[in-house]
Amino acid sequence: MIIRDRPTGPHLFFIVKGSILKRILVPLAGNALTAILVTLAHGELLNHKIVVTTAPFSLIGLALAIFLGFRNSAAFDRYWEARKLWGELIHRSRSLSRQVLSMVQENGPALASNGLADVRVRFIYRAIALAHASRHYLRGTPPGPDTKPFLQPEEWEAMQKSTNPPDYLLQRMGTDLRLCLDTGRIDTNIACGIDQTLSSLAAAVAGCERIKGTPIPFPYALLLHRTAYLYCFLLPFGLVDTLGATTPFVVTFVAYTFFGLDAVGDAIEQPFGSGPDDLPLNALCRHIEVNLREALVDTNIPPLLEPVDYCLN
Amino acid sequence: MIIRDRPTGPHLFFIVKGSILKRILVPLAGNALTAILVTLAHGELLNHKIVVTTAPFSLIGLALAIFLGFRNSAAFDRYWEARKLWGELIHRSRSLSRQVLSMVQENGPALASNGLADVRVRFIYRAIALAHASRHYLRGTPPGPDTKPFLQPEEWEAMQKSTNPPDYLLQRMGTDLRLCLDTGRIDTNIACGIDQTLSSLAAAVAGCERIKGTPIPFPYALLLHRTAYLYCFLLPFGLVDTLGATTPFVVTFVAYTFFGLDAVGDAIEQPFGSGPDDLPLNALCRHIEVNLREALVDTNIPPLLEPVDYCLN
Amino acid sequence: MIIRDRPTGPHLFFIVKGSILKRILVPLAGNALTAILVTLAHGELLNHKIVVTTAPFSLIGLALAIFLGFRNSAAFDRYWEARKLWGELIHRSRSLSRQVLSMVQENGPALASNGLADVRVRFIYRAIALAHASRHYLRGTPPGPDTKPFLQPEEWEAMQKSTNPPDYLLQRMGTDLRLCLDTGRIDTNIACGIDQTLSSLAAAVAGCERIKGTPIPFPYALLLHRTAYLYCFLLPFGLVDTLGATTPFVVTFVAYTFFGLDAVGDAIEQPFGSGPDDLPLNALCRHIEVNLREALVDTNIPPLLEPVDYCLN
Amino acid sequence: MIIRDRPTGPHLFFIVKGSILKRILVPLAGNALTAILVTLAHGELLNHKIVVTTAPFSLIGLALAIFLGFRNSAAFDRYWEARKLWGELIHRSRSLSRQVLSMVQENGPALASNGLADVRVRFIYRAIALAHASRHYLRGTPPGPDTKPFLQPEEWEAMQKSTNPPDYLLQRMGTDLRLCLDTGRIDTNIACGIDQTLSSLAAAVAGCERIKGTPIPFPYALLLHRTAYLYCFLLPFGLVDTLGATTPFVVTFVAYTFFGLDAVGDAIEQPFGSGPDDLPLNALCRHIEVNLREALVDTNIPPLLEPVDYCLN
Amino acid sequence: MIIRDRPTGPHLFFIVKGSILKRILVPLAGNALTAILVTLAHGELLNHKIVVTTAPFSLIGLALAIFLGFRNSAAFDRYWEARKLWGELIHRSRSLSRQVLSMVQENGPALASNGLADVRVRFIYRAIALAHASRHYLRGTPPGPDTKPFLQPEEWEAMQKSTNPPDYLLQRMGTDLRLCLDTGRIDTNIACGIDQTLSSLAAAVAGCERIKGTPIPFPYALLLHRTAYLYCFLLPFGLVDTLGATTPFVVTFVAYTFFGLDAVGDAIEQPFGSGPDDLPLNALCRHIEVNLREALVDTNIPPLLEPVDYCLN
Repeated sequence: MIIRDRPTGPHLFFIVKGSILKRILVPLAGNALTAILVTLAHGELLNHKIVVTTAPFSLIGLALAIFLGFRNSAAFDRYWEARKLWGELIHRSRSLSRQVLSMVQENGPALASNGLADVRVRFIYRAIALAHASRHYLRGTPPGPDTKPFLQPEEWEAMQKSTNPPDYLLQRMGTDLRLCLDTGRIDTNIACGIDQTLSSLAAAVAGCERIKGTPIPFPYALLLHRTAYLYCFLLPFGLVDTLGATTPFVVTFVAYTFFGLDAVGDAIEQPFGSGPDDLPLNALCRHIEVNLREALVDTNIPPLLEPVDYCLN
Repeated sequence: MIIRDRPTGPHLFFIVKGSILKRILVPLAGNALTAILVTLAHGELLNHKIVVTTAPFSLIGLALAIFLGFRNSAAFDRYWEARKLWGELIHRSRSLSRQVLSMVQENGPALASNGLADVRVRFIYRAIALAHASRHYLRGTPPGPDTKPFLQPEEWEAMQKSTNPPDYLLQRMGTDLRLCLDTGRIDTNIACGIDQTLSSLAAAVAGCERIKGTPIPFPYALLLHRTAYLYCFLLPFGLVDTLGATTPFVVTFVAYTFFGLDAVGDAIEQPFGSGPDDLPLNALCRHIEVNLREALVDTNIPPLLEPVDYCLN
Repeated sequence: MIIRDRPTGPHLFFIVKGSILKRILVPLAGNALTAILVTLAHGELLNHKIVVTTAPFSLIGLALAIFLGFRNSAAFDRYWEARKLWGELIHRSRSLSRQVLSMVQENGPALASNGLADVRVRFIYRAIALAHASRHYLRGTPPGPDTKPFLQPEEWEAMQKSTNPPDYLLQRMGTDLRLCLDTGRIDTNIACGIDQTLSSLAAAVAGCERIKGTPIPFPYALLLHRTAYLYCFLLPFGLVDTLGATTPFVVTFVAYTFFGLDAVGDAIEQPFGSGPDDLPLNALCRHIEVNLREALVDTNIPPLLEPVDYCLN
Repeated sequence: MIIRDRPTGPHLFFIVKGSILKRILVPLAGNALTAILVTLAHGELLNHKIVVTTAPFSLIGLALAIFLGFRNSAAFDRYWEARKLWGELIHRSRSLSRQVLSMVQENGPALASNGLADVRVRFIYRAIALAHASRHYLRGTPPGPDTKPFLQPEEWEAMQKSTNPPDYLLQRMGTDLRLCLDTGRIDTNIACGIDQTLSSLAAAVAGCERIKGTPIPFPYALLLHRTAYLYCFLLPFGLVDTLGATTPFVVTFVAYTFFGLDAVGDAIEQPFGSGPDDLPLNALCRHIEVNLREALVDTNIPPLLEPVDYCLN
Repeated sequence: MIIRDRPTGPHLFFIVKGSILKRILVPLAGNALTAILVTLAHGELLNHKIVVTTAPFSLIGLALAIFLGFRNSAAFDRYWEARKLWGELIHRSRSLSRQVLSMVQENGPALASNGLADVRVRFIYRAIALAHASRHYLRGTPPGPDTKPFLQPEEWEAMQKSTNPPDYLLQRMGTDLRLCLDTGRIDTNIACGIDQTLSSLAAAVAGCERIKGTPIPFPYALLLHRTAYLYCFLLPFGLVDTLGATTPFVVTFVAYTFFGLDAVGDAIEQPFGSGPDDLPLNALCRHIEVNLREALVDTNIPPLLEPVDYCLN
């Protein structure tokens, strides 16, 4: 995620970091070239004048506007819903930690120094592992040393074999809930209260899976791309008669806005990647880790992540 | 559901799989033909010149834009809500399995090898059957060998006679909940907790029934189709005087975008079919089956489904 | 509700059932006539040429687009929310039935043949009566023989005197809940669980009351109608100079789309009527009745309703 | 709230009640006058021809459309959300009454004739007072004889001194809940169930406070008004050259739609007033009062309010 | 937040307070100057005529409309969601206070004069501190004398060291909940009820963090700014041939609406600042403080905040 103040004035036009220009450079250059050739040929193709006024473009523009507008808001809705689901992960993790610390009856305070033998530490560390494991699951990377210290060795082994590591960890929390019930540390009222938090965590993770697994229907993408490309590559023929030498410039400007709008949608539609336009899952996981370890009075807590070169990962 | 990377460059125009072109081939060809005839006749019909400038098209375009834009987002909302409801089915099934495994007091671990005599196995297997039965119910197909192994023989018989198999299975889970209460395996707190999960599953299934049973009001479809068809078939008369020989090409392009937008809406409005534009219910059910059977340490678990020829069923 | 496949090809233009054409026939004919007169008079009124180019229409079109677009989505949102609320009624009724059957401790199975002396049968029959009573309440018809058999005679009498029959039935369910508590059939945990379902049913009914009782603010309707009518009746003056004899045809086409869009909104804005564009409340109530009676192993269960002449009531 | 059937035909243009025409009469007349003067001067100002074609208006129209469209839906969303919150007040009050009547253990039936000594009557009467007090709080009027009979004298005194009367009443219900707990009329399960209903009532009232206290950001209003006024007052200069004598008429029509759209937004943005475009809070409170008093078998129940001169207050 | 009545008539154009004009003064002046120069040079640049008709602007306008419309509603949605989350903070705080006062068993009434030794006072004072701490956290200011009196000294110290003060306070409430459980002041039913309120408070705070920490994706801002600036600075070339001397005026008007729309979005996108366009967090916190202290019969309660010079902070 790019974090930078909005630029003003001429500076606006010289920003590269955070711009989507490099994503659309090839088609944009192709379009500009076409426009130059059409202008030089005065709109003739093989010595045959192609008559296209601007009228068709405003008719097609109607469909294009619907496509682009829909696509744009659908992509942003996915991005924002994904962020909301991670927000849910964050505050449910905090609430889980609060519930475990206050409701599970145990001798002595819950300190990270008790280690994984303390069921309360186990619960909270597992919630940290859940965040890391969800991130890896969504990004398609294997969980690593960021996750391992928060799990018991055998749990760590088993999790890696599971087809759905986050769900595995939630099932494990259920097992510890049973243990607390059996040893009288909680009664069934409290068990149900904590169990609801687990269900909410499960819902948040499943929501992320849904966004990752179900793209915007492919025919939309295809239709939108085809329309936008045809539109922009035909535009020089429509403008050359009235604009003359200004044609290539105008065409490039129009194409820049359309291709750019399309590229932004592409960039944020799948928000779980690790590029500069994706959600900063590393930072969000770190946020959860810091909050939960502070509640356990842990030591060696790493700092919150800060943007590097305007970019938060 | 089509799963493929977004094509780029000229490749974009040669994709057939995932395109909706074949759905609109007939009216598109008819429209192109009309445009050619009108161009050859110089806009005359029975030796009578039909004067239509582009002005009316921008006026009608206004209504058409509202229709198409509304229809498009209504159809996509249905698609996306349906996917959300299946996501609900997925995570509620997982939570049900977690609740049953952790909260139902029973001797020994819950293993698939205990068979349907173990009330916990029965619950979780029934949740798998619920997913399969819901899929068949929504697609109008009879439940088959994918569903049968997860139910007791008499339950399997009774379910097939029910007018609403998913609801029947949820009622059966209620019966087992009673059994657990009577045998002291759970208390009423836990019973209420599990019962809430059952209610959520019932809500998800009922939501899918709603989408299947209540199409977008028919007058919309009719009005939209009529407007789009009239618009496109009259367009040649409006353009021939200014564009001349380019008319058929432009008309076909405009019609392609309008008919295409309409066809995409048609394709995703009823998302429970089994075509390439529908939700991959087979894969989602398999996902539930794998997750729940892993929790039971089951054997012979089938693999998750992968797209075949870019298409996930 | 009209249930029919989308027509294709020329067939599209000859459908009457489900079309809103008959709702707009009078103003449309008036508009066409005006256009013909204006065309014959060459845009003169009392020998005085009325100069209106198409420019004003694109300016007014802007406001009209906002009106029509807003009105259209507001009307559809009402329709769809109403359907969602009935979906809520459906699945909450099913869940109520599941809860009562599984959580109320009683000797012997709950069979419809036990009659209304069995508190469980009373609960479930009352839920059926609730659906019927809500339908009658929303449609302004008196409850009749479809509702009576599911209530005790004195309850049936009292319900008819109530200003709000659905709420009366929910209050009665509360009384039976008290009875179950007093006789030890349920404890307070379960009472609260069932009570929540009753609150959800109350919320669904109140939502329907809201939609019925609060139309889209009247000034919108007035402003929209006035604008649309003025627009269409002035249009001939704007087009006659450029289009000549084609004017009446184009005007009628434009008016058809605008009046049609308006009429569809009118038709679905109040979705609780009993016309072909309203929600099929009869079928939805029957659906509830069949599901709940099946759960009670009732006899003489009527079939689900099917569309008659493409129309589900 | 205006309740009347949609008018049809010429009748449409002679409706005054419910029209927003009187709100916009002054600027509309000013605009018409300007247009007449500009037409008479042939677009000259101080003998200097002001050249403005229609082109700028379609460019500005773009921004205006975004403003008006946004403003319109934001205003309607506020109106509809406010109505939903009152719907929430209605059904939560009914559910509170059902819960109190069925779950609070007490000798003898709960009858209004028991008076405020009966804790159940006190609860339900206080819920009626809550509706009235919320209405007065939102409308900025002091609670009066409509509220007083439902409260104990000292409660009535104290409520009037509170900065937030609805919240005071909910706190008092909490006190009675404590009383019921202390006297063993309810256990903590039921206390929590009723307490949740109180929280929902608190949420509904707070939602209404939010709508009342947080208008649409002022810069929007300012920018929108300025743009709309400049647009309409400059329009005559843009049209006079092509339309001539028809200019004043067209300008007035355009201004009517824009000012009208703006005025409707103004009218419904703050829905808690007591004008004809506001929510009928009197009727909604009466609705609650009638429903709850019927549940208590009260006497002298007033009738539901009916529209007077098409207007429900 | 600006609170003032909508101005009418000519007064409308002389309002400065609440206008966003000063935010856009520099680019607007630059644009006007450009337009004047272009007009004087008759559209020539270095003696070379730049031919740009209005056609390209309506094509680009399409993309610009999508950008501005999307950006506008995304920004307002953030603003309104932020306000809703603070509304949630308000009513959950009130409900927490009601729950603590009615459900925690304790000798004698809960009065502020008992001081922080009374667990009920501690709970409610901490809820006030939570509001203040959240405000400071979101605005990036250190909590000060507005927060300190409501916390025990050691709690105040510890809170300032926490990376997330609101979460720290919620964890502390959890500790007091444990204390109440241990001393038998509440049972686990009530503990779960109060704990749910704490989870809701945690969700509201986390929602605000999300809005603060996740801006609208930067590429949007960049693309939108670039397009709007290019559009407005090229506009003079497109208009000078038809409008002549009126060009600078029209260009400035168009630029005013576009830059203004953009600036309003900028102003409300991050609603937690302390400027006149931000949410009045001071007033909202004061609102919570007054409500909760009244419930404790506290003394020296400060008054609610009123707008100063139309501005509520």
